[in-house]
Amino acid sequence: MIKTEDVQRKIDGKTKPLGSLGMLEKVALQLAQIQNTLTPSLSAPAVVVFAGDHGIANEGVSAYPQEVTYQMVYNFLQGGAAINVFCKQHGIQLEIVDAGVNFDFPKELNVQNQKVGYGTQSFRKTAAMNASELEQCLTFGAHISSKLSNTGTNIIGFGEMGIGNTSAASLIMHRITNIPLKTCVGRGTGLNDDQLHKKMAILEEANAAHPQHLDAPSILSTFGGFEIAQIVGAMLEAKQKGMAILVDGFIASSAFLIAHKMDESIIENAIFCHKSNESGHHAMLEYLEAEPLVDLNLRLGEGTGCALAFPIVQSAVHFMNEMASFEDANVSNKK
Amino acid sequence: MIKTEDVQRKIDGKTKPLGSLGMLEKVALQLAQIQNTLTPSLSAPAVVVFAGDHGIANEGVSAYPQEVTYQMVYNFLQGGAAINVFCKQHGIQLEIVDAGVNFDFPKELNVQNQKVGYGTQSFRKTAAMNASELEQCLTFGAHISSKLSNTGTNIIGFGEMGIGNTSAASLIMHRITNIPLKTCVGRGTGLNDDQLHKKMAILEEANAAHPQHLDAPSILSTFGGFEIAQIVGAMLEAKQKGMAILVDGFIASSAFLIAHKMDESIIENAIFCHKSNESGHHAMLEYLEAEPLVDLNLRLGEGTGCALAFPIVQSAVHFMNEMASFEDANVSNKK
Repeated sequence: MIKTEDVQRKIDGKTKPLGSLGMLEKVALQLAQIQNTLTPSLSAPAVVVFAGDHGIANEGVSAYPQEVTYQMVYNFLQGGAAINVFCKQHGIQLEIVDAGVNFDFPKELNVQNQKVGYGTQSFRKTAAMNASELEQCLTFGAHISSKLSNTGTNIIGFGEMGIGNTSAASLIMHRITNIPLKTCVGRGTGLNDDQLHKKMAILEEANAAHPQHLDAPSILSTFGGFEIAQIVGAMLEAKQKGMAILVDGFIASSAFLIAHKMDESIIENAIFCHKSNESGHHAMLEYLEAEPLVDLNLRLGEGTGCALAFPIVQSAVHFMNEMASFEDANVSNKK
Repeated sequence: MIKTEDVQRKIDGKTKPLGSLGMLEKVALQLAQIQNTLTPSLSAPAVVVFAGDHGIANEGVSAYPQEVTYQMVYNFLQGGAAINVFCKQHGIQLEIVDAGVNFDFPKELNVQNQKVGYGTQSFRKTAAMNASELEQCLTFGAHISSKLSNTGTNIIGFGEMGIGNTSAASLIMHRITNIPLKTCVGRGTGLNDDQLHKKMAILEEANAAHPQHLDAPSILSTFGGFEIAQIVGAMLEAKQKGMAILVDGFIASSAFLIAHKMDESIIENAIFCHKSNESGHHAMLEYLEAEPLVDLNLRLGEGTGCALAFPIVQSAVHFMNEMASFEDANVSNKK
């Protein structure tokens, strides 16, 4: 295994004041460690957007109607969404997965069919999914990362689309972190004060309706969505395959919380891309002791934070491989 | 002139929750206003690095010896510095200007000769430059922006190289903002506690050696460097030419403070790229009510913050021009 001090010596030898590239130096060190090399590289970068519907969406927790999930999947497939634009900008391969949307997409569309159902059950009273659905999600998610690893991808980000999924993510966050539910619940796609109040009341009720102590997989099956659960499976497999994992905003990070409970070492491969404007994300990142790359007040999901932060990760690799050292360039080092 | 509400309507019509692209939406609005169009674009992006030496560098205020200024200019010309790597990554044209380095570069090198002298005087006792040198700097700086505008550049960032120039920037900041000198002085390229203490004492003495009330141009000639003064001229001209101005870290922002005093409207064209790890920069940004795009703990200068933030500015333009609207994509809007 490569030694941290050897990587650090290479970073410190570059023609710049010591430490002056800040977080880029941390990312460079992390990638060198993940890839076990002094010359890390990024190959066939990919973002996978998992879409799924949520029973809880019909209880009045979202500003948008449930059909927006399938409509946005169409939009992804036609190239009109934010994630399409940013992936195109940065040469990132984009895959769209139907993890469980309440709609049948025509076969000729370029959507990966990993449908586990037509949306989850509302977790207001019962669990969102059963044990076999959870198992299926984890396997399907893993399949995507495995497939992309086989075709050369060594850095992967995960996005999501699913009306109602900030509610699912809030409960996952609360159950995993023990942070008060109030801190975990936010305005999602844009609730006003009254709507937020209603969402809060529904989620408190839902939280009370389920056993107090649940392990991570049970938290996921009780409150999660098919898209969140497939992301968990995909993240765990990405770790197994030695890929760098780009962690997006509130919902993708809630999937990461579960994956992290199931395999703590996954943190070694995680690059936290941004701090979301969704109120709970800040506390979630603190819990993980994560320092995200950017803070642009985004709250869009779809993996957009991964795509927007990607060039910064690229910059970390480029400075490692392309900058001259003090020695190469005949530049005097510190007095 | 284009109406703000028309730009905002276009932004709000994109297939995303209202406001969910955060700071990208602000940048898109700003670029639309600067360019007076609903379809802003970035053309021939450029970063210009101005280099100059400082008399104060010989008083023991820097961790690096003065010859590093010319050595780093060589490094820029050979493509080995961080700014080279990041400009190459993003297709940004890079120009290197000798504004007043204490070295004669061979004529065959690709450095723009705008040399005003072989470094400034030490401002410990006398002004760093005289009125005619200041005038020359402003004219030379303006020339660069004018030339680049003529060849199609509509977005420009300014970087600097000059051992000792955090000292110059600290005094400019203190004199323009009235923020206590202690808040304006930091570790620069990496001073330890003792060295910082010494730098502070020297700068306090230098501050006391000059008249208490000075206008912005006199502050610039008293404490500035040739590279800082040329950046001021370049920024003012960039505003005249209707270019978007990428503002880098502590030193480039000190030039912006002067330019802003000379033409307040320049703020309309300024995109603040990053929050530097140099301690005074935070307060400087607050004074300008500026919200920088990224905070990566950089403290390198050279315009690296401009280059690293540039893809985010590009993303703002791309979403404006390429994302579908709710109407185009048949996506239901808010309930």
